[in-house]
Amino acid sequence: MTQSSVTDATLMRHALSLAAHGPLTGGNPQVGCVLVDAHGTIVAEGWHRGAGTPHAEVDALSKIPSAAGLTAVVTLEPCNHTGRTGPCSTALIAAGVVRVVYAVSDPGATSSGGADHLREAGVEVEGGVLAAEVEAFIHPWLTATRRGRPWVTVKWASSLDGRAAAADGTSQWITGTATRQRVHEQRADSDAILVGTGTVLADDPSLTARGDGGELMPHQPVPVVVGERPVPQAAKLRSHPAGLIETHSRDLEQVLAGLFGRGIRRVFVEGGPGVASAFIAGGLVDEYLVYLAPTLIGGPKTAIGDIGVGTIGEQRRLAITAIERLGDDILLVARVSTSSTSEGF
Amino acid sequence: MTQSSVTDATLMRHALSLAAHGPLTGGNPQVGCVLVDAHGTIVAEGWHRGAGTPHAEVDALSKIPSAAGLTAVVTLEPCNHTGRTGPCSTALIAAGVVRVVYAVSDPGATSSGGADHLREAGVEVEGGVLAAEVEAFIHPWLTATRRGRPWVTVKWASSLDGRAAAADGTSQWITGTATRQRVHEQRADSDAILVGTGTVLADDPSLTARGDGGELMPHQPVPVVVGERPVPQAAKLRSHPAGLIETHSRDLEQVLAGLFGRGIRRVFVEGGPGVASAFIAGGLVDEYLVYLAPTLIGGPKTAIGDIGVGTIGEQRRLAITAIERLGDDILLVARVSTSSTSEGF
Repeated sequence: MTQSSVTDATLMRHALSLAAHGPLTGGNPQVGCVLVDAHGTIVAEGWHRGAGTPHAEVDALSKIPSAAGLTAVVTLEPCNHTGRTGPCSTALIAAGVVRVVYAVSDPGATSSGGADHLREAGVEVEGGVLAAEVEAFIHPWLTATRRGRPWVTVKWASSLDGRAAAADGTSQWITGTATRQRVHEQRADSDAILVGTGTVLADDPSLTARGDGGELMPHQPVPVVVGERPVPQAAKLRSHPAGLIETHSRDLEQVLAGLFGRGIRRVFVEGGPGVASAFIAGGLVDEYLVYLAPTLIGGPKTAIGDIGVGTIGEQRRLAITAIERLGDDILLVARVSTSSTSEGF
Repeated sequence: MTQSSVTDATLMRHALSLAAHGPLTGGNPQVGCVLVDAHGTIVAEGWHRGAGTPHAEVDALSKIPSAAGLTAVVTLEPCNHTGRTGPCSTALIAAGVVRVVYAVSDPGATSSGGADHLREAGVEVEGGVLAAEVEAFIHPWLTATRRGRPWVTVKWASSLDGRAAAADGTSQWITGTATRQRVHEQRADSDAILVGTGTVLADDPSLTARGDGGELMPHQPVPVVVGERPVPQAAKLRSHPAGLIETHSRDLEQVLAGLFGRGIRRVFVEGGPGVASAFIAGGLVDEYLVYLAPTLIGGPKTAIGDIGVGTIGEQRRLAITAIERLGDDILLVARVSTSSTSEGF
């Protein structure tokens, strides 16, 4: 009955490729599942299409009349929780699945325990197959879920000398069209887009995710405004298609906890400099997207302000994970360096 | 007698590869030469090894007993000037060379005219072969010579947010060992290394070009100090192996004119922020080397200060010509954008 681990890993890699069809947003992870017969042949595929829709296992089960005697290979431990959908562990047992292979344990406080439930029902269970690859794939969701705080990406654009605007505050056309389009795509991959009241009052941004032609993308992140000043009644944000969250607070940890409670797992921080600097100073940033335009500006308008580094030993070391040319601009993607001892967490 | 232009270009490309054996420093250009018989066979090679040594043509002529009836293919128009060596035009005529092919005209005020001299002596002369490639190869020297001002490279190292130091002025170990070694190599490729008096007083730098093991490299750029304050008697710069030039001036155009008069063609500006910013503000920079370390520092110590950009239309647009990883750091090489209208020259 037991298949070779090589075959399990191969099947898991296919399940992972199915997971990628699902959305990054909506609070749930991307999960894929294949149902396999005793010969190792895939007889059904499934993936999760977002909160409120069937989980990957249930999606796969729905494709065939009977799963009796089959093995389920799924990227995440089957849930054991009745939320908007029923527990997958129960569905697999009821369908007659005899073996379940998964990669990563469910980190949810209420949804874990699926493996134990399956074993108690006599199902053979193996976890940890291709775990590193699947962990890396859903790393932001896992991180957010395990610590109870959303994954935070901070983005800024600057000149090569770190300025976001000229001395008089003007900043049009520092970065090019390829960068601006990429930022819209990154907004669409987020649950929330966060700015400070200063940015709202100064720039009156729309904060929508739009395509090349200016059209709204299918998924819109909800705008979140931090700071104590109210958003003006006439602000464009008040007609944002995803609504508007006014926090009336500058306590970022509290703000993030509140967003997590609403099911938000991916937060895209767009600034301005005060908000970005506060997130960095607070050790609350998971990922940095730094867009560098090939220009020099000098003067007082730095993209990042004071982040609480008084002496060089306190610098915030990062690890650059990607470098990309976007037209004339450069995108640097960075995360907190694992060799750093100066980060707040 | 006339060879095909394809053959001339092929021979010129070989001459260019020979030119690369010569030094970047010393005030003279890198030049290569081949002597070719009527069948297109190379019978001698030569290149220039620096000021005071034979020019490429004379070097090639010295390899064979007679050049009667040969063609000389040389990357730069043969000089017509008696300096530390005699005119190459005269040497080629005396040796019996019947045809001269060159790529780029000699821009020197006193050394040009070689082609005319050769033609008057009955030598067949063709210029402009592979001109674009050779121009690009000796672009810094040509630029400096044509305008009578050295080629200026400005280097700085900063965090991703554009800081050169923490708030208290500490800056050790922002960049890594690969970057520090690269900077030493770039010093060795320069005629002069320029800093402000502020850097001398604050850091007491050695400004030598050293190898991996700390040993002095064969060529040392001469240190140049701009600013009105004197260099202290105990400063390390006073024992620099290439001497020391104190300008007692903050007038950068005057300083550069003086350096050009001394035969200096490649100046490497290492800062600090005040000097680098003054060069940028004055439109005196030909090339930028920006080392970015994967770290965030924030605060007041920006690598570049005020460069005279009051509003965004005055930003200094650059064109990035290379991106390189150096250990954990990133090197961006940039030149003034040719599409820019905001540069001072």
